Amino acid sequence: MKIQIDVAMEYDLSGDMRACLAVEAAKTPVQTVLSEELSLPGATLTRTAGEAGLGQRIWVAMSAPRMSLRYSATAEITRDNSPLENFALTPRHELPGEVMTFLRPSRYCQSDMFPAFVARRFGEIEGGAKVAAMRDWVREEMTYVPGTSNATTTVIDTFAAREGVCRDYAHMVCALARAADIPARYCSVYGIGVEPPDFHAVAQVYLGGAWHVVDATGMCEPDQVAVISVGRDACDVAFMETSDPAGLIEQSVSVRPA
Amino acid sequence: MKIQIDVAMEYDLSGDMRACLAVEAAKTPVQTVLSEELSLPGATLTRTAGEAGLGQRIWVAMSAPRMSLRYSATAEITRDNSPLENFALTPRHELPGEVMTFLRPSRYCQSDMFPAFVARRFGEIEGGAKVAAMRDWVREEMTYVPGTSNATTTVIDTFAAREGVCRDYAHMVCALARAADIPARYCSVYGIGVEPPDFHAVAQVYLGGAWHVVDATGMCEPDQVAVISVGRDACDVAFMETSDPAGLIEQSVSVRPA
Amino acid sequence: MKIQIDVAMEYDLSGDMRACLAVEAAKTPVQTVLSEELSLPGATLTRTAGEAGLGQRIWVAMSAPRMSLRYSATAEITRDNSPLENFALTPRHELPGEVMTFLRPSRYCQSDMFPAFVARRFGEIEGGAKVAAMRDWVREEMTYVPGTSNATTTVIDTFAAREGVCRDYAHMVCALARAADIPARYCSVYGIGVEPPDFHAVAQVYLGGAWHVVDATGMCEPDQVAVISVGRDACDVAFMETSDPAGLIEQSVSVRPA
Amino acid sequence: MKIQIDVAMEYDLSGDMRACLAVEAAKTPVQTVLSEELSLPGATLTRTAGEAGLGQRIWVAMSAPRMSLRYSATAEITRDNSPLENFALTPRHELPGEVMTFLRPSRYCQSDMFPAFVARRFGEIEGGAKVAAMRDWVREEMTYVPGTSNATTTVIDTFAAREGVCRDYAHMVCALARAADIPARYCSVYGIGVEPPDFHAVAQVYLGGAWHVVDATGMCEPDQVAVISVGRDACDVAFMETSDPAGLIEQSVSVRPA
Repeated sequence: MKIQIDVAMEYDLSGDMRACLAVEAAKTPVQTVLSEELSLPGATLTRTAGEAGLGQRIWVAMSAPRMSLRYSATAEITRDNSPLENFALTPRHELPGEVMTFLRPSRYCQSDMFPAFVARRFGEIEGGAKVAAMRDWVREEMTYVPGTSNATTTVIDTFAAREGVCRDYAHMVCALARAADIPARYCSVYGIGVEPPDFHAVAQVYLGGAWHVVDATGMCEPDQVAVISVGRDACDVAFMETSDPAGLIEQSVSVRPA
Repeated sequence: MKIQIDVAMEYDLSGDMRACLAVEAAKTPVQTVLSEELSLPGATLTRTAGEAGLGQRIWVAMSAPRMSLRYSATAEITRDNSPLENFALTPRHELPGEVMTFLRPSRYCQSDMFPAFVARRFGEIEGGAKVAAMRDWVREEMTYVPGTSNATTTVIDTFAAREGVCRDYAHMVCALARAADIPARYCSVYGIGVEPPDFHAVAQVYLGGAWHVVDATGMCEPDQVAVISVGRDACDVAFMETSDPAGLIEQSVSVRPA
Repeated sequence: MKIQIDVAMEYDLSGDMRACLAVEAAKTPVQTVLSEELSLPGATLTRTAGEAGLGQRIWVAMSAPRMSLRYSATAEITRDNSPLENFALTPRHELPGEVMTFLRPSRYCQSDMFPAFVARRFGEIEGGAKVAAMRDWVREEMTYVPGTSNATTTVIDTFAAREGVCRDYAHMVCALARAADIPARYCSVYGIGVEPPDFHAVAQVYLGGAWHVVDATGMCEPDQVAVISVGRDACDVAFMETSDPAGLIEQSVSVRPA
Repeated sequence: MKIQIDVAMEYDLSGDMRACLAVEAAKTPVQTVLSEELSLPGATLTRTAGEAGLGQRIWVAMSAPRMSLRYSATAEITRDNSPLENFALTPRHELPGEVMTFLRPSRYCQSDMFPAFVARRFGEIEGGAKVAAMRDWVREEMTYVPGTSNATTTVIDTFAAREGVCRDYAHMVCALARAADIPARYCSVYGIGVEPPDFHAVAQVYLGGAWHVVDATGMCEPDQVAVISVGRDACDVAFMETSDPAGLIEQSVSVRPA
C-alpha cells in the first residue's frame, strides 16, 4: 500500500535551543520511501541513527527563533498483513542478542509485574494467537479517552485505570507480550485512519523471526502504518525533544492513501 | 459462634524500646468478649483508642529486654452472616461523616485509579451483590502466594501481579469497593480456618447502614472472625509496632471454635 | 487577627449530580467565626461532620443545572503564632488515639519511605525546632511551579522533582514530620497573602499537645489562615467533589484582613 | 592492573529449565582477557551478544538437574583511572545514536523526575566535575544497608529512602547523570575490594567520548573492575536468568589482584 504523509510544524524555539526530531518515515525492507522532502528554513541539520538502528534522529540548530518544518513523503508499505496467528513464537534462547533488549521491562512498561496475570489469562494460547488474544483483550478492556494519561503514566497505572490513548494501548501490548517472553517494542508511526489525525503509536512484536505491527486501538492495519522510530517505550521515540519547553504554534499531520 | 483465641509472642526488645500492640479482640455490639487474659511479665501498659474508636492499642514499656506475651480470649461472634446480596448500598450523601473516611484512597489502596474498571466490570450490579461480585472476582483472579508482596506493595501492584496474601486480597476489595463509592475498611482479625495459623486480614464494607466482613481469600465466614482493629489499610493495623527492629524469637496464633 | 473571606463559585452540575462541598471556615477554639453567610439558590443542603470531627461537609442537591455559590465570613483567628521552637515533641506513646492516625502514611504521603533521610538530616534537632528545620528545608529545596503536579503526584515524586504547589509543599512537611514520629495533617485553608488568590493548603503538626500551622510555601503566618478542613492528605479535603465532572464557569476566592 | 577472577556456582535447575548467564569478563579495548576457563559439565552452550554489543550472554541447556559452573579468568585492565574532572561533557547533539539510548529513563532509573533537583544541586558545575560531584553526593547521602531494596525498588524509592546496595548506588548515579543530559549506563562487574565478595555493580558515564567507571559505593577504582555486561539498569544485566526459580546451593565470587 502507498501512503502519503504531510506534516507541518511551527514552534517557537527560544534562544539557542536545539531540537531533536524523529519525523521521517524509516527506510526498511518492508517500507520503501518513494519520495520525500524535508524543509526547515534557517536550520542546520545533523543526523544520527535511531534506536535499534532504525530510522534517524535529526538534530536541528536554528538561526531564527521560529522553527517552521514541512515534511512530505510517499512510502510504499509491503509489511506482511497476515494474521498474527500464522506465526510461531521464537524460543527465548534462540532470540538474537539485539532482540533480547525488547524482552526487558522499561520506564513505562514494567512487564516484570505481569507474568502471573499473563500466564493465567493467555497461558493456554500457543504461537502468534497468544499475541492476537492480548491485542483483543487490550482493545476490549480499555477505553480510548484523551487526557487521562500523562508523561508519568506507566503501564501499571494504565492496567488499573483502563483508560488512555494510543501510547497507553501500545504500552499495554508491550508489557503483556514481554511478560510472556515475547519481544515487543514501541513504535512511533504515521497511520491511515488515525482520528483525530496526529502522530500515532503502535506495538511491534517479534514472531517467526520478524517484527509484526500490533495496533490495539484498532485504528490501523499493519500495511497502513509507516514506522518512524522504535524503542522500549514512549520515552525512546518522541517526535520532538528540546532541552527547554518549545512553544507550539501550529502542528498538523495528514496521512492518506497515495 | 464462640471463638477461642490463644496467642504467644516472644520478642527481643533491645534497650529502651517501646512496643505498640493491637492484639486484643475488640469489644463491639456483634463481638462479645466472654473472657480474656493478657499476660506480659515485667511490662507497664498504657492503653489508647484504636482507629475509628474501635478496639485499643496497648503501649508496652519493658523493664526486661525480652517481651513474653500470652493472650487468651473467648469471644462470642453474633455478626450477621447473611449474604451481602441482602443489603442495600447507602447513597454517598447519606453516609455519616466518620464513614466517609473509608471512601478515600489510602497508602496501599489507591482506589482513585479504579473507577473505570469498576464501572465496566461491576457497573450493572446493584446493591450488596456488587460487593459480592467484587469479592468473587478477587478470589477468582488472584493466587494466594506467600512471599510475593512486601511492605511497599500497593493495590496497583497487586492488581497487576495478581498474587499476594490476605493483606493484598483485603486491599483489593477495599480499592474496588471505594472506587464504586462504597465505604470499605481494612481489618486485622483472628479467624477460624486460617492456614497457616496466623494473624489474618479481611475487608469490611458498609452496606445497609452497617459494616460487613468480606474475606476474598475464602478462608473465613463473617461469624468466624474476631476483629482486632480497623483502618484505611494495612498501615493502620499492625499487631505490633516498634521504633527499632524487634527480634522475633517465637510467635504462635491459635484460633478455634470454643 | 480578623480575616474577611469572600468566595464565589459558578459551576455547571449536569443532571442529577450532587456535590459535596467543604468551603466554610471551621469553628474551633482558635478560630471564631464572627459572621458568615452561605448562599446557594435552588439547593437543598445536608451537613455532615468533617474529617477528625473538624468543620463540616455540605451535600448539595440542585433543582437547577447551575450551582451558584456565595460564601462570606469574618473569622477571628487567635491561633498561637509562637515559633515552633517553643514547643516540645510529644512522645509517641503519649499521643491520643485519634492523633496517632496522623502518624500514618497516606495516599500521597508515603512517610514510611523517609525515616533514614529524616534521621540523617534532622535527627540531631530536638523539639519543635525539628519541624521548623523541615519547613525551612522544604522551602529552600523546592521551587513553586504551578502545573508540575497533578492528582496522582505523591510525595515520593515531589521529593525527587522538587517542584510543585501548596498541595505538594504541605505533603512534604507531612511526610517528613511523620517519618520522625511527629503527627502531621493536611489542611485546606483560606490564607491572607496567597498569590494568586485561591484555596490554599498548609500542614499542621502536633507539638506540645496542640496542632500548629506550618506553611512551607512561606505565604502565610499561622494567624493568617482560617482552616476549612483537615485530613491525612489532599485526598481528604477537596473543597468540592462531584461524582461526574462539573463544569467550572467562574470561581474567585478573596481573603483579606477584616 | 591484572585481576584474577574465580567464580563457583551450584544451582538446582529443575526439569527442562534453561538458564541465561552473563558471567564472563567482556573483551574490550581497555579490558584484555589474558586467560579464561569456563566449566559447565553436562551443559550445551549457545552464545549471543550482550546489550550494546558488549560481552556475551550464554544460554545453558542442561542434561542434568544440577548446574555446576566454574569460571576463572585473568584480565588486564587498562581503563583510564584519571579523575572524572579531566574530561569534558559531550554536547547532546554530538552524541552517537547508540549512546543516546543511555540518556533515557528506564525501568529502575526514572531520570525524567530529577532535572530540577540536578539543576539546582549540580547546575553550576562544569564538565566531568559534575559527575564527580554526583558520585560524592550519592556516597555521602546514602547508607549501604543490605536487605533494604528488592527487585521492584526504583531510583525514586531509593532517592527517598537513602539506603540500598551497589545496585541502588549505581541507579542513583545513572538517574542523576541522565537528568543532566549525560549518558549513563549500568554495569555488572567483578571488582577488587567488594565486601562481602560478590558480583558488583557500578555506573559508567560518557565523558570526553568514552565510558568511565563510577563507583559511588567507593569500593572500587576504575582499573579494579572487570565489566561483564552493561545496560540501562539492573534489569538488563542479571548474571543468571531462568524462567522458573532456580535453587541456589552454593555460590562464591573471588576477585583479587593477579
